[in-house]
Amino acid sequence: MESITETKTGESTTAPKPLSMRFLEVRNRTYEICKPLKTEDYPVQPVTDVSPPKWHLAHTTWFFETFALKEFDPNYQEFDPTFGFHFNSYYNNVGERVQRSNRGAMTRPETARIFEYRKYVNEKLIDLLSTARNSKNLYDVIELGLQHEMQHQELLLTDIKYILGHQPFFPCYRVDSYIDRQLADVNFDWVKIESGLKPIGYEGDGFFFDNEKGSHQVYLEEFSIANRPITFGEYIEFIESGGYQDFNLWHSDAWEFIDQNGIVAPLFVHKIDGEWQRYTLSGLQKIKGDEILVHVSYYEAAAFAQWKGFRLPTEFEWEVASEKFNWGQCWEWTNSAYLPYPRFAKAPGALGEYNGKFMINQMVLRGASGATAPGHSRKTYRNFFHPHLQWQFAGIRLAK
Amino acid sequence: MESITETKTGESTTAPKPLSMRFLEVRNRTYEICKPLKTEDYPVQPVTDVSPPKWHLAHTTWFFETFALKEFDPNYQEFDPTFGFHFNSYYNNVGERVQRSNRGAMTRPETARIFEYRKYVNEKLIDLLSTARNSKNLYDVIELGLQHEMQHQELLLTDIKYILGHQPFFPCYRVDSYIDRQLADVNFDWVKIESGLKPIGYEGDGFFFDNEKGSHQVYLEEFSIANRPITFGEYIEFIESGGYQDFNLWHSDAWEFIDQNGIVAPLFVHKIDGEWQRYTLSGLQKIKGDEILVHVSYYEAAAFAQWKGFRLPTEFEWEVASEKFNWGQCWEWTNSAYLPYPRFAKAPGALGEYNGKFMINQMVLRGASGATAPGHSRKTYRNFFHPHLQWQFAGIRLAK
Amino acid sequence: MESITETKTGESTTAPKPLSMRFLEVRNRTYEICKPLKTEDYPVQPVTDVSPPKWHLAHTTWFFETFALKEFDPNYQEFDPTFGFHFNSYYNNVGERVQRSNRGAMTRPETARIFEYRKYVNEKLIDLLSTARNSKNLYDVIELGLQHEMQHQELLLTDIKYILGHQPFFPCYRVDSYIDRQLADVNFDWVKIESGLKPIGYEGDGFFFDNEKGSHQVYLEEFSIANRPITFGEYIEFIESGGYQDFNLWHSDAWEFIDQNGIVAPLFVHKIDGEWQRYTLSGLQKIKGDEILVHVSYYEAAAFAQWKGFRLPTEFEWEVASEKFNWGQCWEWTNSAYLPYPRFAKAPGALGEYNGKFMINQMVLRGASGATAPGHSRKTYRNFFHPHLQWQFAGIRLAK
Amino acid sequence: MESITETKTGESTTAPKPLSMRFLEVRNRTYEICKPLKTEDYPVQPVTDVSPPKWHLAHTTWFFETFALKEFDPNYQEFDPTFGFHFNSYYNNVGERVQRSNRGAMTRPETARIFEYRKYVNEKLIDLLSTARNSKNLYDVIELGLQHEMQHQELLLTDIKYILGHQPFFPCYRVDSYIDRQLADVNFDWVKIESGLKPIGYEGDGFFFDNEKGSHQVYLEEFSIANRPITFGEYIEFIESGGYQDFNLWHSDAWEFIDQNGIVAPLFVHKIDGEWQRYTLSGLQKIKGDEILVHVSYYEAAAFAQWKGFRLPTEFEWEVASEKFNWGQCWEWTNSAYLPYPRFAKAPGALGEYNGKFMINQMVLRGASGATAPGHSRKTYRNFFHPHLQWQFAGIRLAK
Repeated sequence: MESITETKTGESTTAPKPLSMRFLEVRNRTYEICKPLKTEDYPVQPVTDVSPPKWHLAHTTWFFETFALKEFDPNYQEFDPTFGFHFNSYYNNVGERVQRSNRGAMTRPETARIFEYRKYVNEKLIDLLSTARNSKNLYDVIELGLQHEMQHQELLLTDIKYILGHQPFFPCYRVDSYIDRQLADVNFDWVKIESGLKPIGYEGDGFFFDNEKGSHQVYLEEFSIANRPITFGEYIEFIESGGYQDFNLWHSDAWEFIDQNGIVAPLFVHKIDGEWQRYTLSGLQKIKGDEILVHVSYYEAAAFAQWKGFRLPTEFEWEVASEKFNWGQCWEWTNSAYLPYPRFAKAPGALGEYNGKFMINQMVLRGASGATAPGHSRKTYRNFFHPHLQWQFAGIRLAK
Repeated sequence: MESITETKTGESTTAPKPLSMRFLEVRNRTYEICKPLKTEDYPVQPVTDVSPPKWHLAHTTWFFETFALKEFDPNYQEFDPTFGFHFNSYYNNVGERVQRSNRGAMTRPETARIFEYRKYVNEKLIDLLSTARNSKNLYDVIELGLQHEMQHQELLLTDIKYILGHQPFFPCYRVDSYIDRQLADVNFDWVKIESGLKPIGYEGDGFFFDNEKGSHQVYLEEFSIANRPITFGEYIEFIESGGYQDFNLWHSDAWEFIDQNGIVAPLFVHKIDGEWQRYTLSGLQKIKGDEILVHVSYYEAAAFAQWKGFRLPTEFEWEVASEKFNWGQCWEWTNSAYLPYPRFAKAPGALGEYNGKFMINQMVLRGASGATAPGHSRKTYRNFFHPHLQWQFAGIRLAK
Repeated sequence: MESITETKTGESTTAPKPLSMRFLEVRNRTYEICKPLKTEDYPVQPVTDVSPPKWHLAHTTWFFETFALKEFDPNYQEFDPTFGFHFNSYYNNVGERVQRSNRGAMTRPETARIFEYRKYVNEKLIDLLSTARNSKNLYDVIELGLQHEMQHQELLLTDIKYILGHQPFFPCYRVDSYIDRQLADVNFDWVKIESGLKPIGYEGDGFFFDNEKGSHQVYLEEFSIANRPITFGEYIEFIESGGYQDFNLWHSDAWEFIDQNGIVAPLFVHKIDGEWQRYTLSGLQKIKGDEILVHVSYYEAAAFAQWKGFRLPTEFEWEVASEKFNWGQCWEWTNSAYLPYPRFAKAPGALGEYNGKFMINQMVLRGASGATAPGHSRKTYRNFFHPHLQWQFAGIRLAK
Repeated sequence: MESITETKTGESTTAPKPLSMRFLEVRNRTYEICKPLKTEDYPVQPVTDVSPPKWHLAHTTWFFETFALKEFDPNYQEFDPTFGFHFNSYYNNVGERVQRSNRGAMTRPETARIFEYRKYVNEKLIDLLSTARNSKNLYDVIELGLQHEMQHQELLLTDIKYILGHQPFFPCYRVDSYIDRQLADVNFDWVKIESGLKPIGYEGDGFFFDNEKGSHQVYLEEFSIANRPITFGEYIEFIESGGYQDFNLWHSDAWEFIDQNGIVAPLFVHKIDGEWQRYTLSGLQKIKGDEILVHVSYYEAAAFAQWKGFRLPTEFEWEVASEKFNWGQCWEWTNSAYLPYPRFAKAPGALGEYNGKFMINQMVLRGASGATAPGHSRKTYRNFFHPHLQWQFAGIRLAK
């Protein structure tokens, strides 16, 4: 895994490589992520939130086929006319269906055929790039496709971890993976930020998503923010002090949720024979106190902050302060709901479904995790999930 | 109903009446609201979100008994030692229970006994007020209790409407009620607000809740906001244009929700024999086009705004602009999540459960409705509900 | 309650009273059963299986109005044209509905009006009987209506007990009720029955239901059956020996059901401060060891029998042996599924819905309980419920 | 598939082959059934009732390892100590688990390793058989294991059909499979049986299950039974006459079930472009009128019989009449609940869980289907499923 994620901490600078080279690099990284899998790992969907690895492989490819090849290559021959039906379900523009199915039941087309699909689309796209020069629109679509694939690379790792981590005997993904075993590298301290009007949102020439666009001003009062995320050691103190049993620490919805679902620890954390252990991508391991906490929900993050007597930062506080601390070890829950920035407008057509329709019931996470693709993180990036979900590489940074 | 809510439009000014007189007035208004009910209407709970009228009557009384009489009157004799168990469930500080129950199964104590309870507590509290002069803390608790009861008066009307509106033959509550039959009084127009730093939150000497406290600044870009809420006529155009069938108009969670629950119109709206009708507190009636829309969810409000090509205002935009338009005909969904203001802190003890624990998964509504108690509305008031709920007197004001 | 059920043990002999007298007696007994209720007890439906007392009162009356008065009295004026809509839901022959409702939401028409309805129908029916002499068909319908009402009397008591027994403070129904406090009157012993072809099913001139009709032969091997039902004392031994924790004693479906629903004792049984108590119609009481067990499901009955090393009798064994023991203290679960006898055929029309459509997924109970109406029990009577239900006055008789 | 199931119609006679040869034949048939599968088909579990093919392969092997090799071969070296944990879940005798899982999440151990497991256990068992001569107990366990594997062969085919039949493009399993495409071979007629005491249950020297043991007498009245099962053509008449919309034809539980689950046809039957088609193991095909109906639930079978004016036979009628007609084209729902025969007793220990714990809530099917293993069918065989399940190769034979 080293070669895939190694240097990723904080803001990254993307070297101006040729697009075709970047295309192949990104596409190949998806392939590398899958190398340790067995064929049986590809089609399963243990819970609704987890997509089968096979589906990620095909869906990211379908994106390039649909929005680049079909749009810009008049001679393009579709790889398989049934694949659109299989893998376009991401967008609601679906046609008629003979019967209802779900991703986890899709054992066919088999994985080998998906890899052929990837190879075919890669070759056709490289061909197209070599002829269709200076086509700004094509380059934009490919760039969007690469960002889309990088997003799916993180989800793919998340889903792989979920699938393997729910096998009875906790198989190892890679012995040398440090994606979810990052260490706290500084002593806990507070960083103070003065009040004032602050610029928020992406400005620059690089790639950005529509949800982070629209630089605008936000007035912030003076605040302090932690110089590093919370560690497993700190969180286990919370567990052992009875944090999951004290309703005063939890939001009303959170209390109901953890009660009904029997949540008593972060995902993948087990107390076995009296000892705290957790499943990592390198297998089941004893928890080390200075490892950065991952796999908590917003509910847990907020309860922990309440217990500590502090709070979570807003996404605006986080963005403003982010140049004063290191980040990138885990996604960090903020106390901001995922809502549109001023002047946000949905793009027309299918691509307009990308972000806007998710702007309700979700909380913003900032930063990046050990599973985030290199070059895919920036301080204005707005990640978002429903507040009860634990299955991301998400942790906690405190503010006051 | 006239006597109860008559002049309520927009900000109200409360005359400086003696506290004991205000106490009796507010308590009596609860009684007036219940007058049209039959004994059988009091104990039922048709859905979880609806509390039995009996429970509202007892719970608001329990509040005064627990936090005023027991705290400030050393000689106070509890009305019935089992009532604490029955009606303190609002707060999580519950003692042991012999077995699980729910509000809707509680046919005992019977309603007549609850009215005795109200009378007893009223008398004891008036006695206490006549002796315990200048007790600032007592006055504060009574004021909070009155505000609490006024909140429950609106919920009581909401729940009464739900209970009666789900009887097969739609019984009338009061023939002359205009709570949910308010008319648009101006032609639609836009009000423009300049950009700038704006003060937000309650400042002054009157009563306020902890969630609206903490005057702070918010930077707003220039925006325009509608001079009145949407009417039923405008909303029915949305329905008839196929709004409930076009997924592009809806948030992802919203689309799933209306699909699974078969939502095709606001609550209480029925198409009967080809004609749009709705249940009002005066019975089933043909819909008039210029009546102010009520009983939509946030999901519906957002989809309607999307269809119109506009958006919902944020709660900050609403608060800043509220002096330039009339309000008070319906609660107005904003596009702001219910989150703490800067410097918000939960009060210690049981009263600290009042607001903070609900600050997740809910959207803010501003304004007031025809069911809001007189003197209970102000421009900084933050109401909040989950985005799927239709059962409030909630409507839509557009912004752009 | 004494006057209502006193002599009921085993087979009863019905004196040849005039039909009009019997009609008034049965109708009046329903009224007597309701006397201890408060108005608030009438409209509630705490769980789906429990019908509101109000509904029983109206539905049994609707039966006479629909099938006797409307059919046989050409001048009959309907009491209220909406009542058919409200109370005919027992049969699937429903017309169009403006919207879906459920029995527990029906606070209107109020209970006082239902009692007027009963009075009105009683008077009209007595008038009809005094004029329409020798109408065999009318007499048959009235007889069926009386049997129907007697069935509902038992359900009414069952539902009243459920409603009151789920109040937090366990109100007493009648201090002197022995319906659910019957004592074992003999020492446990076995009754032996020889093998052979045995006649099964009702034969005679009295009333019977279509499901028990059709005398036919069943071959039985030699068996023994207990001379009395199981007591609470015997069942508590089962609980205390860990019966609810040993999967080997339970059917597969049963084990899943008690696990998912947290069943650890019969309905209404609580261990309070280390002591076994149960809710009876006379309030919460310490359990006495020689009281006859009631409120177990078939699942519990079968597990208990397995634990004892015996089994439940079939309904045929029960019927054949019933003349050799006393019965009538509790309904007795048999190991027979509720299926049609040879030559069973559904009656045409609405009355054909009476029994046949329930002949799947239910187990037969034989006997009668303390809540069964006098004159409503006979050895061929086939009662039936789903095997997971505890809310009947049902117990256990062993066989081997 | 021809070679596997070809001659199976009605009662079969098993040639007295050496046990080791039979062992290899049965084990090899499982292998043959899996040949057309892709690796991705093995681990998935689209619904709870369907087990992953991989699981069938391992579980049947685990049976021989646990009850034969470990019991009778003192030198046996377990193939993999984790496999017991993975695959013994059939019986409730489970040990502690680090966390909850389900069969469909089990991507590991991979399928290739399961095939190694089968090979290893086969070899060890053949070795054991070659040395441990005349061990009646060992032979009995192996015979039970073979019968167990034959049962799973049918379930395996059922589950394979479910998995493939729920792929969006209906892949073919085998082009030449006639398992679910059997033709009616005679014209419909009635077979009449005289009344009398009839012997029921298995008697003889062959293999039988404990649930069919215990020859006993049952008295039957005269009846007639159809000489062949219902065809698809006959069933489609029922559909097209509105059978799924007429509540009078359905049991109460059935009507609720088909309503809530949107059942409007047998499993795998689709109306596509106005034409009745169905998924068979040879792919999607137009329905032929004279094909034997399969994949109906008991609920559907009973409703069809009601519509025809007839009924389903009891399992006793079926057994007595079975020598007068051909059977083996489909499992045939009877109107008998799955209950113990006289003198049935659960075997002690784990093997006692085999049948007894399922004797509630299920209906008996008699006969055999095109998917039943050769030599695994006999007239006394009692198959059983919950009445709502469609996924078996189950059809209808009428009686009157």
